[in-house]
Amino acid sequence: MADKLPGKVLVAQGGGPTAVINQSLVGVVLEARKYSHITRVYGALHGVRGIVDEEFIDLTRETTHNLEAVAHTPSSALLSTRDKPDRDYCRRMFEVMRAHGIHYFFYIGGNDSADVARIVNIEAEESGYPLRCVHVPKTIDCDLMENDHTPGYGSAARFVAQAFGGITLDNRALKGVYIGVVMGRHAGFLTAASSLARRYPDDGPHLVYCPERPFDLDRFLGDVDTTMKTHGRCIVAVSEGVADAQGTPILGKLKPISEKDAHGNIQLSGTGALGDGLADYVSKQLKLKRVRADTLGYLQRSFVGCVSDRDANEAREVGEKAVQFALWDDVDGSVAIKRPVLSYSTDYQLVPLGLVAGRTRHMPDEFLNAAGNGVTDAFHAWLRPLVGSGLYETHRLRAPKVEKRPRV
Amino acid sequence: MADKLPGKVLVAQGGGPTAVINQSLVGVVLEARKYSHITRVYGALHGVRGIVDEEFIDLTRETTHNLEAVAHTPSSALLSTRDKPDRDYCRRMFEVMRAHGIHYFFYIGGNDSADVARIVNIEAEESGYPLRCVHVPKTIDCDLMENDHTPGYGSAARFVAQAFGGITLDNRALKGVYIGVVMGRHAGFLTAASSLARRYPDDGPHLVYCPERPFDLDRFLGDVDTTMKTHGRCIVAVSEGVADAQGTPILGKLKPISEKDAHGNIQLSGTGALGDGLADYVSKQLKLKRVRADTLGYLQRSFVGCVSDRDANEAREVGEKAVQFALWDDVDGSVAIKRPVLSYSTDYQLVPLGLVAGRTRHMPDEFLNAAGNGVTDAFHAWLRPLVGSGLYETHRLRAPKVEKRPRV
Repeated sequence: MADKLPGKVLVAQGGGPTAVINQSLVGVVLEARKYSHITRVYGALHGVRGIVDEEFIDLTRETTHNLEAVAHTPSSALLSTRDKPDRDYCRRMFEVMRAHGIHYFFYIGGNDSADVARIVNIEAEESGYPLRCVHVPKTIDCDLMENDHTPGYGSAARFVAQAFGGITLDNRALKGVYIGVVMGRHAGFLTAASSLARRYPDDGPHLVYCPERPFDLDRFLGDVDTTMKTHGRCIVAVSEGVADAQGTPILGKLKPISEKDAHGNIQLSGTGALGDGLADYVSKQLKLKRVRADTLGYLQRSFVGCVSDRDANEAREVGEKAVQFALWDDVDGSVAIKRPVLSYSTDYQLVPLGLVAGRTRHMPDEFLNAAGNGVTDAFHAWLRPLVGSGLYETHRLRAPKVEKRPRV
Repeated sequence: MADKLPGKVLVAQGGGPTAVINQSLVGVVLEARKYSHITRVYGALHGVRGIVDEEFIDLTRETTHNLEAVAHTPSSALLSTRDKPDRDYCRRMFEVMRAHGIHYFFYIGGNDSADVARIVNIEAEESGYPLRCVHVPKTIDCDLMENDHTPGYGSAARFVAQAFGGITLDNRALKGVYIGVVMGRHAGFLTAASSLARRYPDDGPHLVYCPERPFDLDRFLGDVDTTMKTHGRCIVAVSEGVADAQGTPILGKLKPISEKDAHGNIQLSGTGALGDGLADYVSKQLKLKRVRADTLGYLQRSFVGCVSDRDANEAREVGEKAVQFALWDDVDGSVAIKRPVLSYSTDYQLVPLGLVAGRTRHMPDEFLNAAGNGVTDAFHAWLRPLVGSGLYETHRLRAPKVEKRPRV
């Protein structure tokens, strides 16, 4: 590899953590440490913030055993940030990288992170400094363009499926209306995964609402009413980001919004407001007594001990592949997961950063039913392999009824 | 066993489900089916409601394989009820039992269920009808008198520990205040289990509030402020039932209460109100931007795939022991779990129903710190064996920092 540019590798993690994001980190580090022309592997603390602040740790001096232990630990081991760099911020990042002789930059994150990699890459090009920038995909929302699915999604989907698996049993034992709010601002993939909890025909969730379909409070009320009349109970899975036909978030219609993050997004997570608002609405309008709401919250992305083995393996591979693309092919881009065979095989391709950066993928139309309150078999066929092996089954008693008797 | 009274067994499940409540059911059924003088094993659907309504299924006609599959499924397979029987209700239950020739009644539940077993037992005695009534303990709250701990608690505690294990990593990656609301109306055992998530000295939860100590909003604010100044972040675990020194629920101080259940309790679960109220209070008073709250909700008691193996075994054993006590010794009572050795052994004793019925056990004083915002090592020594084997460990990177460089 005498023709290869000697230099350092820098890796960072951005955005919301996932259960397997450290698999990707360790994939990058272990693979990069194999190449003789890589002089160091640095990690930046707190994502892009740690790059402008020059907060690096030397991962060449980390043991393999500890890296493997970290790989199995959820949430970004290099820590994260919600900073959204502008052009000037990216220039400062680039200057720090140049000062350290970093020629390979790997950024693990969602579509905002891909955009950062894209802009830093442009900065380097304009300065005539060789800097390979590769975006490593990560997001529980599964909303990256060019990807069949994203690392982090399978484990979060498994958590949501197991959560609703218990909820439908609980709600069968003590009947009522249950509303579970699932993460997903613009894409309903994670909310839709709740449907995997259904095993028996009357199991919940009976109604699934994703942001891809307009949410109408009256139609929602009618759906709950119909389900209650059919099953005597009703389990609802709803995305935190559901909005009406005009795009107004339902949460905004139920409660005024005050907090916005640095990306200009309103706060949907870390509050029970949507679930409580919907529960209150159902309870009052349908005059039902037992209406409960849970917001699954941060557990969805960080719960310890609920991982899809397939998701973990793929998260590792995208990190490894990112390094292989950059070091063998000397190219920039975003690693994308393709699925040549639905049931199931994986392929990794490097796609241009611009195709992923700042863009959001939504659920394909054929994954959602026409009524906008449920998912299709096509979605299930797509989802099932992603949640991994050993998914728990639930079972019911099948003993015959006993005939009634006259009192003694 | 020619001297034993031939008759039928009736088993039912009451109150809130747990992850292992079906282990106890299956323990009763499999053990009862071994005795030649037991002519049938019936299960009542929906607890006491199914007894007055005479809704029985014949568990003598259930396969062993399916019983084992059900044992590993969370939430009451016989379904449950929130009915709180009065004397007249218990009399009607007894009349149905007599009509079916039931001489052995096993009721799996909490302290309300123990009280039902006690009253039905009195009814039978007054009618001169031989009816053995045995209460089989169950509750994630761990609040039964006479018990070191209760079946269902270990698995719920494991869930809470793993939830906060992820939360502390997530909150370390993206700093802020996080408030997690845990089930527990009068007893803080489950909330306190969150502390098992701490592995590194700066891990959360940093503050733990249980109903056993009066909750003061000002002191709480001071605790959060101090923790933020120390760690730059703060994770709080708080019981849904925390109340001030006068016994007024904090939830009531933050928001007016409307709904009460049949037991006259206010609704604490199935709403995010306490978490949201506390987060709003902290955010405004301390002028902090990133304050999030999750209410762990129903997942705590029904999540599929998070079970303490020890808890599952003990839940099975209390069901088995209940039958053995009733059938070999011809006595009534409540099966209680004792712990002869702290670290660890188990013993089961039958105690009088009146000692458990309708009473609530609280956390011993030595389990809570003097400041009322944390737990002690004594609590940890008590808790650790209960959450079972194979608890997930979390790991951090230990790579050295890189020295800063001048810009090129």
